[in-house]
Amino acid sequence: MIIVMNSGATEQQIEGVVNKIKEAGLDANISRGTERTVIGAIGDERKLEQEYFEALPGVEQAMHIVKPYKIVGREWHKQDSVVNIKGIPLGGNQIQIIAGPCSVETPEQMALAAQEVHAAGCRLMRGGAFKPRTSPYAFQGHGVEGLKMFRTAAEKYNLPIVTELMDARQLETFMEYDVDVIQIGTRSMQNFDLLKEVGKVNKPVILKRGMSATISEWLMAAEYIAAGGNHNIIFCERGIRTYETYYRNVLDVTAIPVLKKETHLPVIVDPSHAGGKAWMVPALSRAAIAAGADGLLVEMHPNPCEAWCDADQALTPQELKDLMVSLGAIAGAIGRTI
Amino acid sequence: MIIVMNSGATEQQIEGVVNKIKEAGLDANISRGTERTVIGAIGDERKLEQEYFEALPGVEQAMHIVKPYKIVGREWHKQDSVVNIKGIPLGGNQIQIIAGPCSVETPEQMALAAQEVHAAGCRLMRGGAFKPRTSPYAFQGHGVEGLKMFRTAAEKYNLPIVTELMDARQLETFMEYDVDVIQIGTRSMQNFDLLKEVGKVNKPVILKRGMSATISEWLMAAEYIAAGGNHNIIFCERGIRTYETYYRNVLDVTAIPVLKKETHLPVIVDPSHAGGKAWMVPALSRAAIAAGADGLLVEMHPNPCEAWCDADQALTPQELKDLMVSLGAIAGAIGRTI
Amino acid sequence: MIIVMNSGATEQQIEGVVNKIKEAGLDANISRGTERTVIGAIGDERKLEQEYFEALPGVEQAMHIVKPYKIVGREWHKQDSVVNIKGIPLGGNQIQIIAGPCSVETPEQMALAAQEVHAAGCRLMRGGAFKPRTSPYAFQGHGVEGLKMFRTAAEKYNLPIVTELMDARQLETFMEYDVDVIQIGTRSMQNFDLLKEVGKVNKPVILKRGMSATISEWLMAAEYIAAGGNHNIIFCERGIRTYETYYRNVLDVTAIPVLKKETHLPVIVDPSHAGGKAWMVPALSRAAIAAGADGLLVEMHPNPCEAWCDADQALTPQELKDLMVSLGAIAGAIGRTI
Amino acid sequence: MIIVMNSGATEQQIEGVVNKIKEAGLDANISRGTERTVIGAIGDERKLEQEYFEALPGVEQAMHIVKPYKIVGREWHKQDSVVNIKGIPLGGNQIQIIAGPCSVETPEQMALAAQEVHAAGCRLMRGGAFKPRTSPYAFQGHGVEGLKMFRTAAEKYNLPIVTELMDARQLETFMEYDVDVIQIGTRSMQNFDLLKEVGKVNKPVILKRGMSATISEWLMAAEYIAAGGNHNIIFCERGIRTYETYYRNVLDVTAIPVLKKETHLPVIVDPSHAGGKAWMVPALSRAAIAAGADGLLVEMHPNPCEAWCDADQALTPQELKDLMVSLGAIAGAIGRTI
Repeated sequence: MIIVMNSGATEQQIEGVVNKIKEAGLDANISRGTERTVIGAIGDERKLEQEYFEALPGVEQAMHIVKPYKIVGREWHKQDSVVNIKGIPLGGNQIQIIAGPCSVETPEQMALAAQEVHAAGCRLMRGGAFKPRTSPYAFQGHGVEGLKMFRTAAEKYNLPIVTELMDARQLETFMEYDVDVIQIGTRSMQNFDLLKEVGKVNKPVILKRGMSATISEWLMAAEYIAAGGNHNIIFCERGIRTYETYYRNVLDVTAIPVLKKETHLPVIVDPSHAGGKAWMVPALSRAAIAAGADGLLVEMHPNPCEAWCDADQALTPQELKDLMVSLGAIAGAIGRTI
Repeated sequence: MIIVMNSGATEQQIEGVVNKIKEAGLDANISRGTERTVIGAIGDERKLEQEYFEALPGVEQAMHIVKPYKIVGREWHKQDSVVNIKGIPLGGNQIQIIAGPCSVETPEQMALAAQEVHAAGCRLMRGGAFKPRTSPYAFQGHGVEGLKMFRTAAEKYNLPIVTELMDARQLETFMEYDVDVIQIGTRSMQNFDLLKEVGKVNKPVILKRGMSATISEWLMAAEYIAAGGNHNIIFCERGIRTYETYYRNVLDVTAIPVLKKETHLPVIVDPSHAGGKAWMVPALSRAAIAAGADGLLVEMHPNPCEAWCDADQALTPQELKDLMVSLGAIAGAIGRTI
Repeated sequence: MIIVMNSGATEQQIEGVVNKIKEAGLDANISRGTERTVIGAIGDERKLEQEYFEALPGVEQAMHIVKPYKIVGREWHKQDSVVNIKGIPLGGNQIQIIAGPCSVETPEQMALAAQEVHAAGCRLMRGGAFKPRTSPYAFQGHGVEGLKMFRTAAEKYNLPIVTELMDARQLETFMEYDVDVIQIGTRSMQNFDLLKEVGKVNKPVILKRGMSATISEWLMAAEYIAAGGNHNIIFCERGIRTYETYYRNVLDVTAIPVLKKETHLPVIVDPSHAGGKAWMVPALSRAAIAAGADGLLVEMHPNPCEAWCDADQALTPQELKDLMVSLGAIAGAIGRTI
Repeated sequence: MIIVMNSGATEQQIEGVVNKIKEAGLDANISRGTERTVIGAIGDERKLEQEYFEALPGVEQAMHIVKPYKIVGREWHKQDSVVNIKGIPLGGNQIQIIAGPCSVETPEQMALAAQEVHAAGCRLMRGGAFKPRTSPYAFQGHGVEGLKMFRTAAEKYNLPIVTELMDARQLETFMEYDVDVIQIGTRSMQNFDLLKEVGKVNKPVILKRGMSATISEWLMAAEYIAAGGNHNIIFCERGIRTYETYYRNVLDVTAIPVLKKETHLPVIVDPSHAGGKAWMVPALSRAAIAAGADGLLVEMHPNPCEAWCDADQALTPQELKDLMVSLGAIAGAIGRTI
């Protein structure tokens, strides 16, 4: 940690900071510049809190220089990690497109959806049984009944299922129905108690980025899961909140190479929630794969116009098939397969 | 709801939209402009989903024109609501300053804090027993033990206590220790399952604004609580996330008059988390009261330099006393008391 | 334009709005809903100002439903426009990579840069003679001398030159030195007087997006140029300002398909200023081309470590060559060439 | 400047950085931590560019620790500066409310406006002759004719006039009509050529904050003016761009105490452009004054419903009078006058 003192800091204040560093078991290096004195803390600076030092008299600013995440960081784990989902690898050379409807509606809808997901060549299926809705008066998902419908429909095509967990109290049910991948939604990225719970189970977790989460906060949220023992974590970029109102969110493609540098874990992208409109999905999907994403989470509905939620962002089965062809070409251009 | 058709929309597409409106039990008004046809849905438009209509062929845009919130909205409840906290009114002419440390540390710290909160003339006390921390390796709060320490310290001065609930599974404990005001933190504003739970209990709830929540999302989060039967809701503005890096968040004072217009419920402000530095608190507090806030949530620590978290944003006891004097003058200037 | 009245709006207020619409030469359609009355203005609504109607008594909200831009809009010009730059087409099937240093430094640096741009297979060259710098104490560019050096160096390889115009008073000099493409920088996007001036000349203009400009403001800035008679406009996305601090800006790839839908004009991307680091450029460049961009503006310096500005974001000559190969593959995957 | 090396940085890379620091005439302090080596540059670090060092091999990050602004910074000028506007002090104990219409429309409107500004007790008048409009088809202001009308109307009540300069070519006209305060608008905050020009004249300048400018960029923009010799600079906070759509901008009150700490120059606030609605102005004005602003820039129109631009944000004459009374009470509460 670097501690920058005020221009008028006294010797006593400098000593005060040095003492606090030593009390924490670290060493101090003092550098007296022409306008500022800078103190460096030498040792495991993760023990030090920036706010604590910024409250000391004479301190202008304190800055961490070491990354606060360890298990998920690439610094201590150079090789790419591949998450194994019932034999399907996520994070290797093969790109995974996870498709399916926004919400589980009826057994018929799910049967048709599973058939189309399979027909398009996708190997994993998504669908929501518990739905986070802005309004308490909107459809909240079928819950446990939805999980059952989803499981039944996907089994026919051996498609592992991905679905969102919103509350720690539902985790047992998720284990009972053998959900293959637990999705932590954007609004739960910093639900720390929930992260701790999924850290204890042996299931892959897709961790969506919070609506306005920084890269650092996102990595720390993953560290919560990893600290519990579960290292099967997949990051999912889904667009961030900005001032732009033409589209729902701004897909942050820069996050892809940045995460690839900072973490060894796989990174996927949700182009459907990012743009919020089906017609934007193909361009955003191609951009994500070209930037190095390991997979996508795409909304497809057998009949978008009849969808119970987010109808305007679901692809039709034919559009999904066309997208797969187009993504195959992009994957090939960067030496990967789909 | 207003549905704007594309410039090239066909008669059949217009008819399709009209039919969908009628299926939902509403009436349609068609207005043919020179460049666009606009269809208005007449009746209870809360039944209609914007996304559903935007997925229909020929539709350019669909817009709600009625507010989606009902119970918390001022449109149907003109008078200001006053929340009664063990006899202390929040929302009336008297402004309430809720003070206390960021986190419950020791019985001694809490005893001293309670004494100083009381001595400064505050009538309610805050303190965190369960702490949402960005890092899994940081102090996570004392939990239930913290609640006990807090209750004991506050009781001596008859100070009702305000503390954060992070997980629905802790709610029973909160009821057992008779927490007076349940705080829903910024990261939980859209934890819908948690909102539903606090909607079922008979306790005042402080609902902090999400880090990048819109006014509309915030009101809808309150509607979740209200829909469960609990109308004792207090909004708490705590700064929003922006591009500015000099301060932690940007205190959104405009939200105060806007909420006062949109809802009948009280509005308070947390100047400590907004700016993130103790020296910014007096100016922000004065601004909040001058803009019409009904109260504040302020961090005060008997000895900020020794605080276990957010040390740099806590006022000293003397600074809190000075702030109370200064706020008394501002309150007087707008015809209120403190 | 749609005007939504307050729930308590009187007949007289409704009449007042209708009269104002008629005074402007348009017709009014009144739709009385259960909770709100909505008035539609029929005719050329571009004559009406939203703010004007929102100031009238009883009005809750006024909304334009027709796009405010005409010349640059695709609605009235369906075909893609191709901008001809001394025989080099920008906007057609062939993608153009415009490369070169951030700033013009010395004749030697420019000679070497031009040689490398040409060797990599690029057909256009960029370089800054007038530099917008955050600090008045930083190198401000060589100005006219820089233009001369640039022109001399580029001529050897027949590379048309792209350079930034910051002030209308420099336009004459730009014409004198026959700058091939005038770049309007991000800080000048809403320098309306400057836009009017470049609207009067017969030179292609690259219009960079303002740091926090909406798509609509950006299109309107282009409309300023177009309204003056110059339709040779190229949009350049260069990242937007957000709360994220890991990278300088967030490259907004969604803007690419959205602009392609809204305007017939070409769209290019500046991956160097977006991410701010050379190592991010390849991933961002591939994403941009995959999303449909018609070209790129890339920083390359013969010796980045010695660059006078933005040293950390310039590619080396070899990195530019590698990038060209990689982009060729992506272009091929979407049926275009490079 | 602090330079943090990568965890795997070699001795040669460390030496390379040290050499570059010495070449610039500074000294280097090397601190070898357990995970990172940190190099401190000792001397006038303003000579070093962060980007330059971040481009060197082995460097992870470079950070300035000294403020980049000098003339406008409080570090080297402890006392508050008071700007004298024809005998009226801005920045002292007395708060100045600058009122007037958005745009100069007719001699009659300006005569009436001046009368009302004076009657309300304001000592300065604002009005726009050159208007920055998002659309090229909107009213662009009366230009020079507008300046004349404004001058004539204001003279009757000895009101110094404040008006916006958009283009350096208009500066001579501004001097000719003896404009008392030159306003640099939000879109021109980083029009560096314009800043340089107003830095050469002897007129007070109101420098509005850019729509998404950081505090640091804003201070540097002022430094551009100051570096030219003109130190009569007044900062004007006018709301920043965020994701919130309920109001036009978010008034950043935190900027007020922060600027007061960083600069000795006066700070005023424009509550009209911040919120964008007249009904928000009183609350925002009170908040600004309570937070320590030295003045306000408020829109008032003799007849808002007939205003040619921003009709919905102008106060009526009576509302301005009421506001002055209300602000007088707030000013009194903090020991100032109005």
